Amino acid sequence: MVKLIAMYEKPENEAAFFEHYETVHAPLAQKVPGLQKLVMNRVYADAFGREPRYVLIAEMHFPDRATFDAAMKSPEHRALGQDLMSFAKGIVTVLFADAEEG
Amino acid sequence: MVKLIAMYEKPENEAAFFEHYETVHAPLAQKVPGLQKLVMNRVYADAFGREPRYVLIAEMHFPDRATFDAAMKSPEHRALGQDLMSFAKGIVTVLFADAEEG
Repeated sequence: MVKLIAMYEKPENEAAFFEHYETVHAPLAQKVPGLQKLVMNRVYADAFGREPRYVLIAEMHFPDRATFDAAMKSPEHRALGQDLMSFAKGIVTVLFADAEEG
Repeated sequence: MVKLIAMYEKPENEAAFFEHYETVHAPLAQKVPGLQKLVMNRVYADAFGREPRYVLIAEMHFPDRATFDAAMKSPEHRALGQDLMSFAKGIVTVLFADAEEG
């Protein structure tokens, strides 16, 4: 399985951030072709008692690299990326990963 | 669902790191009571073409907060934490999160 993992640092206005994420960004993510599942991980603590580095870690799941690579080139993904830059520029890290159960 | 998310920055010796992770650390993680699933996300790229901030993002899945909190207090989890410090001190961030499908 292939995942896009988006990690969001604490935004200036956390309530506005989550409202935009849930009402605009997540619905755009759901439109990306080939997407199997969207997972939102809302961080509530750091294991070592520090301020958590991220408030949200979101995952987009795809079945394989071919589907993922096609998804990344789709107009729907381009729209998602444009929206991302509108509300999370400077606080988001986006990584691509191969996922396996261990 | 509740997740422990461990994010590992690039280690000095990546081959030795992954060997330790797979042969020692993952088996210890599997012993933690209440664990539903262990997922390894091996990062292969950053979406913006930067050096990826992490090489590995691992997830431990638990069904709910009560199971998770009990797991964190178990001797098996303590052993896991001790092992973590033996090979990943200074390069690992560990966060706790509530996960939901969006």
